[in-house]
Amino acid sequence: MGDVEYLKRAVELSRQKMRAGEGGPFAAVIVKDGRIVGEGWNRVTNGNDPTAHAEVVAIRDACERLGTFTLEGAVMYSSCEPCPMCLAAIYWARISRLYFANTTADAAAIGFDDAFLYAELALPADERALPCEQLDVEEAHSVFAEWASMPDRIDY
Amino acid sequence: MGDVEYLKRAVELSRQKMRAGEGGPFAAVIVKDGRIVGEGWNRVTNGNDPTAHAEVVAIRDACERLGTFTLEGAVMYSSCEPCPMCLAAIYWARISRLYFANTTADAAAIGFDDAFLYAELALPADERALPCEQLDVEEAHSVFAEWASMPDRIDY
Repeated sequence: MGDVEYLKRAVELSRQKMRAGEGGPFAAVIVKDGRIVGEGWNRVTNGNDPTAHAEVVAIRDACERLGTFTLEGAVMYSSCEPCPMCLAAIYWARISRLYFANTTADAAAIGFDDAFLYAELALPADERALPCEQLDVEEAHSVFAEWASMPDRIDY
Repeated sequence: MGDVEYLKRAVELSRQKMRAGEGGPFAAVIVKDGRIVGEGWNRVTNGNDPTAHAEVVAIRDACERLGTFTLEGAVMYSSCEPCPMCLAAIYWARISRLYFANTTADAAAIGFDDAFLYAELALPADERALPCEQLDVEEAHSVFAEWASMPDRIDY
């Protein structure tokens, strides 16, 4: 299968799961070494999980199947351009390449305003719509210091 | 309990779970109507899930406990300033307020470079480190059109 075929698989999955009432019309497929290692679709409303966007679910699926927390060398095919949560998740998962079909403009046209989120994240914390405050907790510093000095810690 | 006490609870949880080998030194607590409705801690390495940051896990926990996909009116207390994935998740969950202890600068000092991610997300797609390509798939448009015309869809 080529890139277009994998992307069409993601789109077909988005149609099936949308019709099944799982959530929004989004799905994603992850491919590594020439085979599908993860699939996901939006399960926000049916799964009661606002973090269950297609890309996040696909990453969890691939990592569980492969028994790893890093997907270096893997390619994601998403039926739509990722929101900032999903894009950051793609970076954290070390996915190497991304293809998508619908754009954020297409998503905005049917009511998914990811552009607002991208704009919010680019603002300084004190200018965002979300009220946010830093409180000084001395113990928080000691936890970080302990992490930095742990000889057997697993970095990620 | 007041804001500082809830935040200290999150910090204490981060210490316990870090020592238990669950993952990075991060935890979060979600409070609604005066009680803790969700807790989470970093489980990236132990859980083989790069999306299992403290805030995301806490949101999933609260939504599961409350049987909902929206946490409007809830407050999050995080042991550290959220990364972009977690901050966007907080917006998607409609959490109303955020308190945190350690800052992204503190996190960077022990090797967690969230600033790189914030910078990447603020760039146009074609200037990001992640190779990314839009491919036109006609079926993708028809899925979005079908969503827009579904009378029984659940918006989120």
